[in-house]
Amino acid sequence: MAAQLWRLSAGGRGALRARPRLPCRPPGPPACEQRRGLGLPRARARGGGAGLGLAAALGAAGLGAGLLAALGPGAGPVRRADMARAAGDADPDDELGRRCGRFMAPPVSALSELRARPDDVRTRMELLVLDTQARLCGALQLLDAGARFSVHRWRREEGGGGISCVLQDGHVFEKAGVNVSVVHGDLSEEAAQQMSRGRNLKAKDGKLPFVAMGVSSVIHPKNPHVPTMHFNYRYFEVEEADGNKLWWFGGGCDLTPTYLNKEDAVHFHRTLKEACDQHSPEFYPKFKKLCDDYFFIVHRGERRGIGGIFFDDLDSPSKEELFRFVQSCAQAVVPSYIPLVKKHCNDPFTPQEKMWQQLRRGRYVEFNLIYDRGTKFGLLTPGSRIESILMSLPLTARWEYMHTPSENSKEAEILEVLRHPRDWVH
Amino acid sequence: MAAQLWRLSAGGRGALRARPRLPCRPPGPPACEQRRGLGLPRARARGGGAGLGLAAALGAAGLGAGLLAALGPGAGPVRRADMARAAGDADPDDELGRRCGRFMAPPVSALSELRARPDDVRTRMELLVLDTQARLCGALQLLDAGARFSVHRWRREEGGGGISCVLQDGHVFEKAGVNVSVVHGDLSEEAAQQMSRGRNLKAKDGKLPFVAMGVSSVIHPKNPHVPTMHFNYRYFEVEEADGNKLWWFGGGCDLTPTYLNKEDAVHFHRTLKEACDQHSPEFYPKFKKLCDDYFFIVHRGERRGIGGIFFDDLDSPSKEELFRFVQSCAQAVVPSYIPLVKKHCNDPFTPQEKMWQQLRRGRYVEFNLIYDRGTKFGLLTPGSRIESILMSLPLTARWEYMHTPSENSKEAEILEVLRHPRDWVH
Repeated sequence: MAAQLWRLSAGGRGALRARPRLPCRPPGPPACEQRRGLGLPRARARGGGAGLGLAAALGAAGLGAGLLAALGPGAGPVRRADMARAAGDADPDDELGRRCGRFMAPPVSALSELRARPDDVRTRMELLVLDTQARLCGALQLLDAGARFSVHRWRREEGGGGISCVLQDGHVFEKAGVNVSVVHGDLSEEAAQQMSRGRNLKAKDGKLPFVAMGVSSVIHPKNPHVPTMHFNYRYFEVEEADGNKLWWFGGGCDLTPTYLNKEDAVHFHRTLKEACDQHSPEFYPKFKKLCDDYFFIVHRGERRGIGGIFFDDLDSPSKEELFRFVQSCAQAVVPSYIPLVKKHCNDPFTPQEKMWQQLRRGRYVEFNLIYDRGTKFGLLTPGSRIESILMSLPLTARWEYMHTPSENSKEAEILEVLRHPRDWVH
Repeated sequence: MAAQLWRLSAGGRGALRARPRLPCRPPGPPACEQRRGLGLPRARARGGGAGLGLAAALGAAGLGAGLLAALGPGAGPVRRADMARAAGDADPDDELGRRCGRFMAPPVSALSELRARPDDVRTRMELLVLDTQARLCGALQLLDAGARFSVHRWRREEGGGGISCVLQDGHVFEKAGVNVSVVHGDLSEEAAQQMSRGRNLKAKDGKLPFVAMGVSSVIHPKNPHVPTMHFNYRYFEVEEADGNKLWWFGGGCDLTPTYLNKEDAVHFHRTLKEACDQHSPEFYPKFKKLCDDYFFIVHRGERRGIGGIFFDDLDSPSKEELFRFVQSCAQAVVPSYIPLVKKHCNDPFTPQEKMWQQLRRGRYVEFNLIYDRGTKFGLLTPGSRIESILMSLPLTARWEYMHTPSENSKEAEILEVLRHPRDWVH
């Protein structure tokens, strides 16, 4: 794909005003390097994107890997003129405009469209996913000063598009991908089957108008003592032949440490539980179990990581209540994960520990390519945006024949947890 | 799996008698290291395996990755006493015994059984796969002095077993796996469906007695100018309810270079074509095309490599003729590939070339985990020997977001061939 990349810092104006501590930045690089990492988007600095308002220190929503990226056939880069036009709507005196100015790129939908239906869950979800993307990218980039997110805004011929943000080979992160998609059109029969998850959808002339949006992310850090984190929150609407509209939410957030740190596991799960508990005491235990069940590498008899929460097909009690639940979950991403990165990104580690991380990365690849529904669906859908789907893969991975950690080792300790999931909070 | 590994050199007595040139050995290591790499099997040196006759400088057969390893549920390491007993049959004055003495481990079937049916294709195929395994392991180890194959002989509770040989992190080879399986028992309905490839098999009480055997190998060298090679030759028999016996052969051999070297491509394809042409002028063009079609990474629009030959379900003109065809193919493995390793294993290379190799390894992983029938079947079969199935994965791999080689580069040159397969010989 002949991509036009928008290499931006995720710091933006907010970051310049309130300069954060940079716990993970290695010593050495000159101040100007730091400033560049936290400064204005390069596009703006060049004068080509002055009207874009892409600063992203605070941020809002994003969306979804495999499943949603698969719905982006024909996706191509947006030309600078298109982006300027889209962002030209952003009146600085307007709240929506200001909010959009903090995203990694202008919303996929036109601002006029978002303004026309401010209370619609589609509008609120699009802003939520863009906000989630920007908040996370901002937080990650503050930790990895000098590294930059490449921002790629793509359009889908059949309707909608997405914003893919990737930071690769930084000081702290090996690969961090945060992807938003907001797509609509007619579902193919095959895609409908995959997406309907058992529902018998009544199509009109073989077509099912749909809207799908979400944010999806995988963060692979370099230090083996910093865990990998994944999350995805998504919303679907499908209109049946009789005009009946079905809708549902899906998503989750899970942690994949190379080594077990119980305190981290408790912090991560507790943060997710608190987000869930605001909405129903049943959510956390139910979605915690679903997560352990879903991220299971069958042929290894191991989970991918120490879990978190996972849900799909959620359509009760109400759209409003579920949106607010998903909003709480999305807002929990940064506080559940970023403290763990800060805590461990300067931990010393041995070559053996790095190697064990690489082997666990291999398992991550196995899960994503063999079992993950979104990835499978995406890869098997002709014309899908492969780079957005596979941004979840680590930069590097390793497979050793018959590698078995010695008894009572730290490697055996985490394996035991992957084989027998634990409850971390009650 | 609490594996008992037989760490052997594949050099054996023959290698000691006729010390080869070691074109790929880096300078430095002391002579005793070389000798250890070419000397007697460690098991024998320890006195524990004196009766095993495992020297393997010449060699014979091996068998099959995913599909066949999947048929090895409950596989476990053979105890030393079992191996000694199995090899105890090997009378040095007996031709079969002497032949078996050059294998990487004693045959899976008892020698008495092999002696009882010398002309049966099952016997000849088992010996062929073991011979192929030993020849290749011997040749590889001569090129990578100091590195050792670990030899793991495993048994399958339901019948049969296998011999997995892996050389890992050598000087020349990053990972070289050569696997033999010789299994029998009753096919489950699911396995039968996968193996029958469209045939409507008539089972008796839901059971289909079967025999399956093969050799399978993937060789990943370190130097990016040495191509990766894969081959697999296999034979199946299934007995239907009315006693009717179906049989078929499958297999192939293909090359995956990191950079295009036309001379190498021609040598590899010509060697395979010559093996095919001995049996039918139609084989090579037909199986060359099947190979290009099979090793297709759909979501990338690229082949895995520059092809070779691939066939499945071959059951005509006759069992005898096809066995001899497969024998020719198996015997072509070493001459098609080893000269390319010798030619390039000391080629200088840049970090950029190594990185491109790693990216191509990532593609290899994608093909094997997403599309390869044998791997998929193996991984989805409960209790299969995962380590034998996944020995095909490289030691290391890499995924970069939106990596695109620059125009007219060597990287773009090979991509062009992977997208548009060429005819290398006529």
